[in-house]
Amino acid sequence: MTFTDITRDDDAENRSGTTVYVCVTCRRPGDPEDGPRPGLKLARETALAADGTGVAVCEIECLANCSRSLSAALRCHGSWTYIFGGLEAGRDAKALIEGAQLVARAEDGLLPWRGRPDILKRGLIARTPPLGFTEGD
Amino acid sequence: MTFTDITRDDDAENRSGTTVYVCVTCRRPGDPEDGPRPGLKLARETALAADGTGVAVCEIECLANCSRSLSAALRCHGSWTYIFGGLEAGRDAKALIEGAQLVARAEDGLLPWRGRPDILKRGLIARTPPLGFTEGD
Repeated sequence: MTFTDITRDDDAENRSGTTVYVCVTCRRPGDPEDGPRPGLKLARETALAADGTGVAVCEIECLANCSRSLSAALRCHGSWTYIFGGLEAGRDAKALIEGAQLVARAEDGLLPWRGRPDILKRGLIARTPPLGFTEGD
Repeated sequence: MTFTDITRDDDAENRSGTTVYVCVTCRRPGDPEDGPRPGLKLARETALAADGTGVAVCEIECLANCSRSLSAALRCHGSWTYIFGGLEAGRDAKALIEGAQLVARAEDGLLPWRGRPDILKRGLIARTPPLGFTEGD
């Protein structure tokens, strides 16, 4: 398992640990096995889009969403984790960073629907609660 | 957001926080909207199957995997989180508990393929890394 963790100082507005995980193994059906992976391209674009935002971008070998790639996930400490599919390099890096910033500012730890980039609506694969989630959270 | 957190003392073998999250909102296409939800049935069966194992079972309102329900997720502190779909009430409660026990015993925090119940192979929707995941973990 190798990945690059591009960590920056947290934005004062944001919760700590605001992170976008991008699958760098993802490729589209028909893409050559030995060619540059579009998932890696998306990861690098996302790291560039994160510059100065306090959002960390982690390249992950596999998010196990292979049939609906490209894939990424986002969360911060205390938030729910959101997993997305159907992403595209050259298009969705900025949306991922916007989503990470939205969840970092959400007091209830939930990614708001309103204001969420469209690809983070139609591309939602699943979400999981934060550690220690308890009734009434 | 309401749910029931059935917490038991951790099994000495297991990592802390070993938890199965079951979506109680899930129903099959064609199921009546006002009838008993099969997701809730699965959650209750899973809680029964967890008895004495140290695995906590949490009922969750929505894991946002609605198109491939029934849905559940599992993890423990320090492990990856695994999300599953295509589950069935009356069939898969025991497999979810076995999966939780497998990941709790995994030193690398990864749910092993070998020995994994079949529904946790073919029903895998996605996985996300543990908080603080760093290169070489």
